Amino acid sequence: MALVVQKYGGSSLESADRIKRVAERIVATRKAGNDVVVVCSAMGDTTDELLDLAQQVNPVPPEREMDMLLTAGERISNALVAMAISALGAEAWSFTGSQAGVITDSAHGKARIIDVTPGRVREALDKGYIVLVAGFQGVSQDTKDITTLGRGGSDTTAVALAAALNADVCEIYTDVDGVYTADPRIVSNARKLDTVPFEEMLEMAAGGAKVLMLRCVEYARRYNVPIHVRSSFSDKPGTIISGSVEELSVEQAMITGVAHDGSEAKITVTAVPDHPGVAAKIFRVVADAEIDIDMVLQNVSGTASGRTDITFTLSKTNGPTAVEELEKIKDELGFESVVYDDHVGKVSLVGAGMRSHPGVTATFCEALAKAGVNIEIINTSEIRISVLIRDTQLDEAVAAIHEAFNLGGDEEAVVYAGTGR
Amino acid sequence: MALVVQKYGGSSLESADRIKRVAERIVATRKAGNDVVVVCSAMGDTTDELLDLAQQVNPVPPEREMDMLLTAGERISNALVAMAISALGAEAWSFTGSQAGVITDSAHGKARIIDVTPGRVREALDKGYIVLVAGFQGVSQDTKDITTLGRGGSDTTAVALAAALNADVCEIYTDVDGVYTADPRIVSNARKLDTVPFEEMLEMAAGGAKVLMLRCVEYARRYNVPIHVRSSFSDKPGTIISGSVEELSVEQAMITGVAHDGSEAKITVTAVPDHPGVAAKIFRVVADAEIDIDMVLQNVSGTASGRTDITFTLSKTNGPTAVEELEKIKDELGFESVVYDDHVGKVSLVGAGMRSHPGVTATFCEALAKAGVNIEIINTSEIRISVLIRDTQLDEAVAAIHEAFNLGGDEEAVVYAGTGR
Repeated sequence: MALVVQKYGGSSLESADRIKRVAERIVATRKAGNDVVVVCSAMGDTTDELLDLAQQVNPVPPEREMDMLLTAGERISNALVAMAISALGAEAWSFTGSQAGVITDSAHGKARIIDVTPGRVREALDKGYIVLVAGFQGVSQDTKDITTLGRGGSDTTAVALAAALNADVCEIYTDVDGVYTADPRIVSNARKLDTVPFEEMLEMAAGGAKVLMLRCVEYARRYNVPIHVRSSFSDKPGTIISGSVEELSVEQAMITGVAHDGSEAKITVTAVPDHPGVAAKIFRVVADAEIDIDMVLQNVSGTASGRTDITFTLSKTNGPTAVEELEKIKDELGFESVVYDDHVGKVSLVGAGMRSHPGVTATFCEALAKAGVNIEIINTSEIRISVLIRDTQLDEAVAAIHEAFNLGGDEEAVVYAGTGR
Repeated sequence: MALVVQKYGGSSLESADRIKRVAERIVATRKAGNDVVVVCSAMGDTTDELLDLAQQVNPVPPEREMDMLLTAGERISNALVAMAISALGAEAWSFTGSQAGVITDSAHGKARIIDVTPGRVREALDKGYIVLVAGFQGVSQDTKDITTLGRGGSDTTAVALAAALNADVCEIYTDVDGVYTADPRIVSNARKLDTVPFEEMLEMAAGGAKVLMLRCVEYARRYNVPIHVRSSFSDKPGTIISGSVEELSVEQAMITGVAHDGSEAKITVTAVPDHPGVAAKIFRVVADAEIDIDMVLQNVSGTASGRTDITFTLSKTNGPTAVEELEKIKDELGFESVVYDDHVGKVSLVGAGMRSHPGVTATFCEALAKAGVNIEIINTSEIRISVLIRDTQLDEAVAAIHEAFNLGGDEEAVVYAGTGR
């Protein structure tokens, strides 16, 4: 008997009919002889509706209460799925994140999981129940207050439970058939991947592939939990995320896929005095505002002027704050100006094979040149190349690279509507 | 500094605007120098919407999951009220029933409070916070599952917290200005009562007065918690429920008010063999189905036949079950038939003064006779007279009795729309 953890997103649960279909799949998994733990997101629009209500009573709602409010959404969907399972003659118990032992820090709205103590979940499984756990939520170790995990939180809940329960697999049900060589909405012959090693999936997620959030893949890799990404609208096998790139045989594809990200912005601090410690101060100011940066570029200093430009990328959400913080130290550091540009896009090529194939970077750049795409910043890891370009050229860049590395398949990719949290 | 517990019903919270008004009242109470604990019901239609969703996925939803589902409603309203308070510059923390220490038995959907351990509530008060507690819900002592308290649950939560915290008063905000001498929807000159002793309020609630549920009054009486019933739509003082009838001076009104109840049905078991133990068996069967009965009438046995009729009243909700259970023992007991009648109504006159005024029953019956109302069953306590009549005559009976005892005032009674849970 295997232990399967399944996670269903909001679009898979947006109506009573979809909830019934999800229940059928859960009961089928149980009847096939598995122990089943299910993590559900909030139904379709519930979260947006609750956010809207909050805005009406307070434009800057306190985070503790926001978490109390939003976690009601998963509570509702879980209870409804449990009822739908019961209507099919099986027995299910639902638990809140707190009841399921999802212990977090106290950072409301973006809490991190510290520990999972699933005693009640294990007990219910031992009694023969299907167990439902509200995703996206936990309880603070220090204050015992309800917390939420932020974006991708339900996926992380599922992986964390799978790790704590030593599950055989964590199935993430979503609105695509799996992980593709590129976004099927942009590249119509994008090919579904059967397996992707953890490291490559990490690079794909960091590069902007939305099918799984970075933190969820990090968690799965750390605890070695195989993830099966698949569609809740079909029975086809999806993509298995597991194993290390070290285990790949030489015959396996050297390039995995193309990821893209239109959510970043670029900040350039111009004419920075080129002496030790100035760059460090710039990045310290940004870090102190709790802002993550992605790519960094420092031009070679003009020897005559003794000044240089420092460029970096960050999430658009954090752009205004970063600019504000940098303006504050302008006089102290003596740089010229802060230039903000939110019309950039990032394209990444990921594949373990590129470590041993020196021609990859050349082919990559040639493909972009041929498509008339100008590269603004280039950044690489052992198994990834990323470039920053104009956002208007994002789609054609993805298509050109996908084509240059022959990543396409013979079938048209299937895309379903909606997206979960 | 006083400690005030306030309870707001669903109609007081049905929109963002109403939530803001409730928040203003709460903050004003805090600024007047009081510690404030607030119990909220779910917003307006939330409960009905959740019930509807449940019905769509399972016509007979499991009770454990139903409680998990419905308790999301109070969680939402509480968090929103906390946010609205924060927008006014005050600080509030909301707690679930479980977090607030509302410990119950395991009877899902109709749990009873076993204990209240409000350690976290007390701690938050000591830190200067306004405390919000989700009404209607608790946590099972045995299973640690979430439970709901059933009808009138939020009122009971408020009174139970007031008792556990030794509060100075429990204010129940509703859509009427207080407790009236009769339902103002039926009797336009019904008079608002300033104070009502616990025993009389118990009889009024048992007689069908909907402003407070019986169990809430029972709880308040047991722990001697004064209740202030008042309107969330005005600032006028409402009705104080406190003290014993023993404390009433002789000058105080001998009759308090008229209550009526259209929610009961009548069952008559005909031609029951008149020997010892048969009546007991009938009532045992009903009790075993966990059905409460109210009034009972046994006709004098006709000496020739040796048979009698047994009549009792019960909630219409339980009618079909009771009939079914009684039909099962028909052959064993040898009675003739079970007659079900759900077109009855009950009118009650309540007042501590009637103990020392023997004419009350006569005046009561004369008033009904003059109004052409036939009495089917009569039932009395020391401070109450109740009669069962046809439901079509309920309104005229209430008006006739109210008039006969001169209970009316000079002003038109104010009635607001909507009702809470």
